[in-house]
Amino acid sequence: MKKLIYLIFAWAFLINAAIGMSEDTPISEATAECLDCHSAIHPGIVNDWQNSRHSKISPKQAMAVTGLARKVSSDTVPENLQNVVVGCAECHLLRPKAHADTFDHNGYDIHVVVSPDDCRACHSQEAAQYSKNIMAHAYKNLAGNNFYLHHQRSIIGKTEYTDGAITFKESDDATRAEACYYCHGTKLKVTGKEIRDTEAVGELEFPVIEGWPNQGVGRVNLDGSLGSCSACHTRHAFSIEMARKPYTCKECHVGPDVPAYKVYAASKHGNIFSAMNKSWNFKAVPWSIGKDFTAPTCATCHISLLVNEEEDVVTERTHQMNNRLPWRILGLIYAHPHPKDPDTTSIRNKDGLPLPTDFAGGFASDYLIGKEEMQIRQEAMQAACLNCHGSSWVKGQWNRFENTIKTTNAETLTATKIMNDIWQLGYARGPEKQSSPFDEAVEKRWADTWLFYANTTRFASAMGGGGDYGVFADGRYHLSKAIMDLNDWLTLRKTMSVPQQK
Amino acid sequence: MKKLIYLIFAWAFLINAAIGMSEDTPISEATAECLDCHSAIHPGIVNDWQNSRHSKISPKQAMAVTGLARKVSSDTVPENLQNVVVGCAECHLLRPKAHADTFDHNGYDIHVVVSPDDCRACHSQEAAQYSKNIMAHAYKNLAGNNFYLHHQRSIIGKTEYTDGAITFKESDDATRAEACYYCHGTKLKVTGKEIRDTEAVGELEFPVIEGWPNQGVGRVNLDGSLGSCSACHTRHAFSIEMARKPYTCKECHVGPDVPAYKVYAASKHGNIFSAMNKSWNFKAVPWSIGKDFTAPTCATCHISLLVNEEEDVVTERTHQMNNRLPWRILGLIYAHPHPKDPDTTSIRNKDGLPLPTDFAGGFASDYLIGKEEMQIRQEAMQAACLNCHGSSWVKGQWNRFENTIKTTNAETLTATKIMNDIWQLGYARGPEKQSSPFDEAVEKRWADTWLFYANTTRFASAMGGGGDYGVFADGRYHLSKAIMDLNDWLTLRKTMSVPQQK
Amino acid sequence: MKKLIYLIFAWAFLINAAIGMSEDTPISEATAECLDCHSAIHPGIVNDWQNSRHSKISPKQAMAVTGLARKVSSDTVPENLQNVVVGCAECHLLRPKAHADTFDHNGYDIHVVVSPDDCRACHSQEAAQYSKNIMAHAYKNLAGNNFYLHHQRSIIGKTEYTDGAITFKESDDATRAEACYYCHGTKLKVTGKEIRDTEAVGELEFPVIEGWPNQGVGRVNLDGSLGSCSACHTRHAFSIEMARKPYTCKECHVGPDVPAYKVYAASKHGNIFSAMNKSWNFKAVPWSIGKDFTAPTCATCHISLLVNEEEDVVTERTHQMNNRLPWRILGLIYAHPHPKDPDTTSIRNKDGLPLPTDFAGGFASDYLIGKEEMQIRQEAMQAACLNCHGSSWVKGQWNRFENTIKTTNAETLTATKIMNDIWQLGYARGPEKQSSPFDEAVEKRWADTWLFYANTTRFASAMGGGGDYGVFADGRYHLSKAIMDLNDWLTLRKTMSVPQQK
Repeated sequence: MKKLIYLIFAWAFLINAAIGMSEDTPISEATAECLDCHSAIHPGIVNDWQNSRHSKISPKQAMAVTGLARKVSSDTVPENLQNVVVGCAECHLLRPKAHADTFDHNGYDIHVVVSPDDCRACHSQEAAQYSKNIMAHAYKNLAGNNFYLHHQRSIIGKTEYTDGAITFKESDDATRAEACYYCHGTKLKVTGKEIRDTEAVGELEFPVIEGWPNQGVGRVNLDGSLGSCSACHTRHAFSIEMARKPYTCKECHVGPDVPAYKVYAASKHGNIFSAMNKSWNFKAVPWSIGKDFTAPTCATCHISLLVNEEEDVVTERTHQMNNRLPWRILGLIYAHPHPKDPDTTSIRNKDGLPLPTDFAGGFASDYLIGKEEMQIRQEAMQAACLNCHGSSWVKGQWNRFENTIKTTNAETLTATKIMNDIWQLGYARGPEKQSSPFDEAVEKRWADTWLFYANTTRFASAMGGGGDYGVFADGRYHLSKAIMDLNDWLTLRKTMSVPQQK
Repeated sequence: MKKLIYLIFAWAFLINAAIGMSEDTPISEATAECLDCHSAIHPGIVNDWQNSRHSKISPKQAMAVTGLARKVSSDTVPENLQNVVVGCAECHLLRPKAHADTFDHNGYDIHVVVSPDDCRACHSQEAAQYSKNIMAHAYKNLAGNNFYLHHQRSIIGKTEYTDGAITFKESDDATRAEACYYCHGTKLKVTGKEIRDTEAVGELEFPVIEGWPNQGVGRVNLDGSLGSCSACHTRHAFSIEMARKPYTCKECHVGPDVPAYKVYAASKHGNIFSAMNKSWNFKAVPWSIGKDFTAPTCATCHISLLVNEEEDVVTERTHQMNNRLPWRILGLIYAHPHPKDPDTTSIRNKDGLPLPTDFAGGFASDYLIGKEEMQIRQEAMQAACLNCHGSSWVKGQWNRFENTIKTTNAETLTATKIMNDIWQLGYARGPEKQSSPFDEAVEKRWADTWLFYANTTRFASAMGGGGDYGVFADGRYHLSKAIMDLNDWLTLRKTMSVPQQK
Repeated sequence: MKKLIYLIFAWAFLINAAIGMSEDTPISEATAECLDCHSAIHPGIVNDWQNSRHSKISPKQAMAVTGLARKVSSDTVPENLQNVVVGCAECHLLRPKAHADTFDHNGYDIHVVVSPDDCRACHSQEAAQYSKNIMAHAYKNLAGNNFYLHHQRSIIGKTEYTDGAITFKESDDATRAEACYYCHGTKLKVTGKEIRDTEAVGELEFPVIEGWPNQGVGRVNLDGSLGSCSACHTRHAFSIEMARKPYTCKECHVGPDVPAYKVYAASKHGNIFSAMNKSWNFKAVPWSIGKDFTAPTCATCHISLLVNEEEDVVTERTHQMNNRLPWRILGLIYAHPHPKDPDTTSIRNKDGLPLPTDFAGGFASDYLIGKEEMQIRQEAMQAACLNCHGSSWVKGQWNRFENTIKTTNAETLTATKIMNDIWQLGYARGPEKQSSPFDEAVEKRWADTWLFYANTTRFASAMGGGGDYGVFADGRYHLSKAIMDLNDWLTLRKTMSVPQQK
């Protein structure tokens, strides 16, 4: 029996060896000191790291990889980082002066919040691409847009009921951090210091960070950089496997406003993933279509470096995720070509509102990509599709998708025409009376049409090729119903000569 | 080390050998030619096939299997197919004259869309059974029923808002293909030919197919056959494993109208599947209860050939999936005994409408199966249950299920009585005024009651034995609420003497 | 080849041996007799058992385990059970006089329904803890509370529509068993006996049990004990693995009233679980953070015995699941400190209603745990968090969670103020007129606010740290919308001077 057990262990070791991990790459002295305490205090963190590639390979070893398999995109990595594994200290001690939360911790200048600009040391291309990703700007794109803030307040603000009317007070910080900015990212700020009595070594001083914790995609970090790599490469596992599985995207893309995961999970692609993924290779770089996986996940279409059987590049890796997206199917309030600039706060529609479309359905075209760029992105996306589907299949699917953009925009226009009549007739107070278009019951019903039902219909088309979810689950059934409800609401008030609001 | 790695490879080979695959079965010359180009162009397709049983075994070898394990149900298979693996050419070259999309492709008469009548060459029983399945007729059963088309138009039609009224224009082809007919299946039609400039070999001519792509269960194929085997046995993997997992059914059975997957996933059976299925055998034929799996998936109860420990047959395989279904729990508008004929367009209720029930809750019994057939089907279904549950358990569960059919039908009747009053009093225009009963706001609220809430309640009962999902998630809570909403809507109009519509 | 196959089998055997299973522990004679028939009749049950630990180890062997790994918590186990595996007879023959469903079955005094008081023979601590769990009292806590019964009737009762009004008749037994009491547990009762003609041995007599089948957490058993261990440790597998996976909890905690699973699955923790759990160890006792798993499931935070790398206890195992819960986030109608007594029927709020809060938001504090106990429970919960998160992270998250309790309670108060005005003005009949506050359309809309939207928002906060699901999927968006709807409903009636109800 001993022999067999030995055999098993030997085998496990060889597998490790085969995938390029070395037991010999040293841990830095600083990291060793961190581990001394933290492996007992934070076994969850330390174990994640120990299972990660970061704990097993030095940047120098990683840079020795040539060709498409190379994961470190920086041409140079700081000398002192090159020959040790990427441990606690290697990240949390980087660029101490750049981070407002740097504090003395047992003789080291530690910062709590590691940022994309830290990761940039080894992953410069990814950091550079991500900074141009609209997601990196998700904080400001919401918090810096007065029009969206009206909407935000009507959703997460505090209601007051007085004299038969509902008014909305501003939401508090904690609610904002837990609601919209959980995904969009909070703006971090050091507000002071505090002494904590730690079990391990008694009293220690730590920075107090407003907006913490947060792992939102557009987090404003304490070094001024934007985003959080751990939004997808979760914390100390830094796992490419996890980022490539659709559960990661689900964290922010599942609700009725952006139901990407939900419609994917009910699609043919999602079915194949759910049924078969246990035998796929989620760690291979590059990622080989057919060999490593047999149906796309979110990452496949939007991010990953894909190759075919002959190791020809099918699509380049990108962390600027709209590189393959001609259309933005999230309606604001209509679906539209993607914005040119990832910072969308400067966009103005023809009515002067900070919206990529106007209420009549027109595009704020000066701020949006043109036909040529749309064509380039469409082809970048379709390059992946064509490895499993004939071109008539892909063309047929795409035509339906673009038709769905057109028809859902048309339905949004119908809803908006009714809403306009309601505003014109004075049954609700809208933008023309300098009032929020989102804070009355009938306005919320209108918001349902474009925020939930038109969006869901488009997401079902884009990620599922259509199907039941685009009809009965927050889709067309509900879109047409909401339009009828708006008309029913107005008709009753017109019929009964309900007095108009002041 | 080399030795051990050799050992691992040797082992992998032996496992392949053990499950009956042979490296020696030849690939036909025609298929070899397909693979020459397509393994590079379509690695996703080719890999799926290479991993499939079709790529590893010839029909002759498959026919040599005796007893319950045999998968090829045809007694004879065309001579030329018998001794090669089932490759590209074996299916896409079959019956070229029968397919309207047959075209010359490098000297071969290829057709794009492989149909059940092609698969019938080896799988004749399954094809024959499926043709009697109501799902095979899903296209016509919708597109050929004027009453349902009213409903369809009120959901996916184009709204127009004029003079304070909403009207519905006909939906376009692309929307229909992506919405209802994604699941029901499109009607395929060759509309012409086009020249495409292919990367591999320059200009080639291909047929242009209207309604393509589609994998709906009732697709009308270019050889006139109905259905798409790849709706469940996804494309080139032809996987029994995938078809047996519930994710496949989810593609069409998850929305609030038919939430089979949703309620299953929250059921005891679904729990066991989710937690334990990674160690089940999804490929075994026959499928042995307890040994291969410990809780049913959709396929277990509705389709699969099941045996017990002693290899006694518990239920026969059927691809006529209503073989074990006495009741049709999808309310149209009430749940009812299953139709006799899978083509339901000839059904007329007592009011002459093409519906299996009338608005007062009566059954169109001439067109529906009788008590005796219902009993046979009930016993066929329960035969599976009884392998894990005592007969008092099964009886108790079934009684509740039939009670739920009764009570949800009763609630639908309450809702319909209110709707009738609304029509009678002229607050909406209904069938008696030759108007669609689905195109006004209050009518949509009525449709919610039977289409979503009564259905969800019944599905939760049938596939979950009840539970939270049948109460709070689109279930009884919402059913009773919608009934009260209908009454509230009517009461307000009566109280205020709202003028009736013309 | 033979050698290698032998090797594989040998290896499998050694693994079994390594985890402590013995082929030598005898099966009792009585169990052997059960298996004689039932392995053919009920292969699903018997196989589950054969794969379970119960079939492989005797209580005596289990009691020989020392330290934290011990699973049998009783100090003594009845002599006759000690040296055989835990088979059919060992449980179904226990305490025959205590069970009202005991009947003679081939010479044995069998009972159908095994109860926590049977399991107590070996698992006394778990049984004792569970009896103090509020879940054990779920039957009476609903069926014995008149106020909740009003709510129950307005959801699952039978509607009648007469004279333009909807009334609710009492629901029937079958509906109750399938709806609320599927999760809460039914009250079992032997109502007689029946002869069944069995395939195996002809006519046999069995007890007829009202309320059967049921596996609800608060089932009232035929020996008077409360609960059903198989609600989580499903039937004859008795699997700790299954109980530790979140799918088990999903059975009752997924609907919009208590969407624990739903928000978990969309959380960072849920993402890690979904992506990585296939390589976790779900059977290890104690359960080591970081080593056995890298993100918590429901059981981790609420039940399991957790240790860190050094095998220090992080949290004690508890089957009294509110041991780590200061707050009850299920609003009745507001979130509140947990009740002191698991039997909540004696609670009275300041208005004399059997509710832990009053309609103005006050707590029935005499019946609820105090600040000190809340602090103890909070620390017990956070003890787990701190193994993966720094204390500022945990504190930040907890502050947001408690803030969300406050703000959602405040929103519920706004909704209730409007509802009160509606009652005061006579547009609906409420509790002050001795009428159910749940049986009119506008009251249901009010119920939405606290039952679905405030609850979902709190669950998303507690189990997901917030995110999209707490905003757009049954969360804050819908909470503020429902509040506006209530006000819109009232405003219209006030404006139009709709006559008040009598």
